[in-house]
Amino acid sequence: MSTLFQEFKEYLQKIQRLDHVCELLTWDMETTVPKEGFAAHADCNAYFATESFKLSTSKEMKEYLDALQSEEEMSKLDDAWKFIIKKMAKDYDKNSRIPVDFFEAITRERSDSFEAWQEAKQKDDFSIFAPHLEKMIEMSKTLYGYTDPDKNVYDAMLDTYEEGMDAATIGRLFQELKEGILPLLKKILSKEEPDTSKFQRKYNVDAQRHVQKLLLDYIGFNWERGAIGEAEHPFTMSFNSKDVRVTNHYYEDHPISSMFSAIHEGGHAIFDQNVNPAFDNTVAASCDFMGIHESQSRFYENILGRNIHFWMPIYEKVQEILPELSDVTLEEFHREINHIKNSFIRTEADEVTYCFHVILRYEIEQALFRDNLPVSELPALWNQKMEEYLQIVPETDRVGVLQDMHWSDGSFGYFPSYLLGSIYDGMLLEAIEADLGSVDELLENNHIDQITKWLNEKIHIYGNTRLPKETIREVCGREVTVEPLIKYFTEKYTKLYDL
Amino acid sequence: MSTLFQEFKEYLQKIQRLDHVCELLTWDMETTVPKEGFAAHADCNAYFATESFKLSTSKEMKEYLDALQSEEEMSKLDDAWKFIIKKMAKDYDKNSRIPVDFFEAITRERSDSFEAWQEAKQKDDFSIFAPHLEKMIEMSKTLYGYTDPDKNVYDAMLDTYEEGMDAATIGRLFQELKEGILPLLKKILSKEEPDTSKFQRKYNVDAQRHVQKLLLDYIGFNWERGAIGEAEHPFTMSFNSKDVRVTNHYYEDHPISSMFSAIHEGGHAIFDQNVNPAFDNTVAASCDFMGIHESQSRFYENILGRNIHFWMPIYEKVQEILPELSDVTLEEFHREINHIKNSFIRTEADEVTYCFHVILRYEIEQALFRDNLPVSELPALWNQKMEEYLQIVPETDRVGVLQDMHWSDGSFGYFPSYLLGSIYDGMLLEAIEADLGSVDELLENNHIDQITKWLNEKIHIYGNTRLPKETIREVCGREVTVEPLIKYFTEKYTKLYDL
Repeated sequence: MSTLFQEFKEYLQKIQRLDHVCELLTWDMETTVPKEGFAAHADCNAYFATESFKLSTSKEMKEYLDALQSEEEMSKLDDAWKFIIKKMAKDYDKNSRIPVDFFEAITRERSDSFEAWQEAKQKDDFSIFAPHLEKMIEMSKTLYGYTDPDKNVYDAMLDTYEEGMDAATIGRLFQELKEGILPLLKKILSKEEPDTSKFQRKYNVDAQRHVQKLLLDYIGFNWERGAIGEAEHPFTMSFNSKDVRVTNHYYEDHPISSMFSAIHEGGHAIFDQNVNPAFDNTVAASCDFMGIHESQSRFYENILGRNIHFWMPIYEKVQEILPELSDVTLEEFHREINHIKNSFIRTEADEVTYCFHVILRYEIEQALFRDNLPVSELPALWNQKMEEYLQIVPETDRVGVLQDMHWSDGSFGYFPSYLLGSIYDGMLLEAIEADLGSVDELLENNHIDQITKWLNEKIHIYGNTRLPKETIREVCGREVTVEPLIKYFTEKYTKLYDL
Repeated sequence: MSTLFQEFKEYLQKIQRLDHVCELLTWDMETTVPKEGFAAHADCNAYFATESFKLSTSKEMKEYLDALQSEEEMSKLDDAWKFIIKKMAKDYDKNSRIPVDFFEAITRERSDSFEAWQEAKQKDDFSIFAPHLEKMIEMSKTLYGYTDPDKNVYDAMLDTYEEGMDAATIGRLFQELKEGILPLLKKILSKEEPDTSKFQRKYNVDAQRHVQKLLLDYIGFNWERGAIGEAEHPFTMSFNSKDVRVTNHYYEDHPISSMFSAIHEGGHAIFDQNVNPAFDNTVAASCDFMGIHESQSRFYENILGRNIHFWMPIYEKVQEILPELSDVTLEEFHREINHIKNSFIRTEADEVTYCFHVILRYEIEQALFRDNLPVSELPALWNQKMEEYLQIVPETDRVGVLQDMHWSDGSFGYFPSYLLGSIYDGMLLEAIEADLGSVDELLENNHIDQITKWLNEKIHIYGNTRLPKETIREVCGREVTVEPLIKYFTEKYTKLYDL
């Protein structure tokens, strides 16, 4: 190891420690901090994030990166470090154009805006959130003006969350998907709805917490490297492969929500816990490609979790923990978790109508960033699109435009990742069955670990080092296509709804 | 405000942010971090604590403090800031003698040692902890050699936790207490034990968590400024008056443990939540005098919590939440929470035998630091003293020498605080009754808030600004004496045990 490289690693360690405490402050702000303690946390977060930003965009950093990119130095590095240096040089190029003051200001506004969103959602009052949302939109435009001056803002946002998946491709895929599933959805909705009377009960929240643990155990969450918390909106956070945390939110009248959030976030966590540990605390670690990341969470949640065979080895245990389900047969439970219906909340939607929840948000983000829609018109546009796609209109913003946290911290362009994830999942299902045989049989025989192992080896271990398109090409042997997802939906629901 | 003072406050803010994240790292290490994530947290904690230490002991700090202590500058400050500057100058004088490398090393060893203690307790294996304990003892001696070179090490330790209460006074008070309660204890133990058969059950842990919330609500814990967590050993942590957190530990077979931990830690928290907010983030805030602090937690736990009138307004609600208590009458419950018996675990002991748990630890600390007892002989000495004071010998170290976390992070000299707290409590009870009338009546009439208000105004609001002896003198009108505590014990248990 060269002296230069050694010094560089020490420099990175300083940045890494600053980032580590910012992660922890964020975790705590979303899970634990009391109302009056929030401001002190947010102040520390902005301070340390800015210190980290200064080190990441310093002249010293530039000198390190330039020197390490010399042919001589590069020849001494292994492949992981070659990737890391190149990726950091690319990040430096973008981020060093952001003024430090602006970076600090947007970091502070993110916390303020998140806090305002929490309050707005609790009080069901969009006006509390609106000024912060306006500011986040303006600041995000400014931010991308610095980092990607030659790109359309929304294109740059999409690229942030799924590098290399350009806006045109995403637009085309979503259009094909919409056309592919609309006829199916229409047929399903014309059939009689399953009986839901057994689900109109109160489900003990403590018991739901125990079910979450059972589900995380079952899918392979590693407790030596993982922890759990509770938050307004479920999310996963990773410090590195050795400390990956999931959160959940429990509703007394809707246990299926916390079960599927558990499986979804568990899928994210299994990804992060199984990244090559050699990448820990570098840009090669936790995967930045959110379509790929969501493909993992949604594979567990939908492809596995909404399959009756997934539940066969554990349903009796679930009933023991949650006796409110004791008169619900596995078949009835399976019908309910695949109950296709137009509903308000994205995170609780079935896997088919879910597509429209994302398309709606994607189109609204386009309206905000391409057509400069005023924030004041957002609730109306939301409701109009709900009417258009799902034929229902939320009575209040809490179950409408205020439901998701994503816009509160400026994560515009994230939502399409969910649907890209599902599109990839259709393809991954085919690839897994080609390699391992029937997923139904694997699940029924309690061999979910074989599926997890396959995902570990084919996807997780690579962390951030392979672009989404490359991953799909290498794992599935072809370019991204919606066809397998449509096929999966069609076969599954034709059978289930007797179409 | 002078420019100098303004600059100084900005300098303090830097230190304060470093301390804030260290607190958060510590909180997370004790409540949440997964096993494999511990090391990264500990590394960050040592790094940021050392950065804070460097700023606190820098030449710049010395210059600020010297300049601000000039007559001219002091005349511009309010009383709180006069106190803060003087206290910081005193701390600087001690701490600036500690070499930075040593500070960092002992901070790292504290985390390692805490982690080893956790594992040793879980595995019931003292040998895992022993080498770390040896190191903590050696390093603590070195530390006090720097900070208090002219003092005996154990005297300096005692002074750290209860400034101004010298070793001779503590020794005398403990001796008087021992002599005062031994005849009472002997009489109690000669009586027939109350029937405990109704407590030989499993108590739902989730329900115990709900009881904790009820109890915290009841005694006046402020949820807007407070949060809860779970830990191996219950503790309270304060960032400032706006973010004060308590933890608990639940045992399925021992609900009284978590109830009284809830009340105890709640007492600490009510103290910290009600310190003058003008002191936040300065050395005037969270009270360093642990005898005074323990007097508040133990006042709630024992003087109030073990009084039957405390439970009258809430016992039915407790039974609803914890139906395992439904056939236990309030009188039976009250007998059990005042069941005097020789037992192994300090935090679960009744308030009378508790005194001996502390005296035992105090004498062992003296053996370690005055007589240089080897760590290898510690378990034997523990067991010998248990035999001597409580006539029982723990079968394993988990319920013996390994039970408490205090020695793991070098908090030698802390234990006496608990007993000083109880001694103060006897005096505080007299003072409250002189001001407000019968505590029994106040509790029975659901006026615990009046007691809390009295404690807020007489003690909490002062935070760290008044030495223990002064506090007792001003609030109780006389010097510290064990007599009221002995009187309280004697009257209460003479009645309860029909002596």
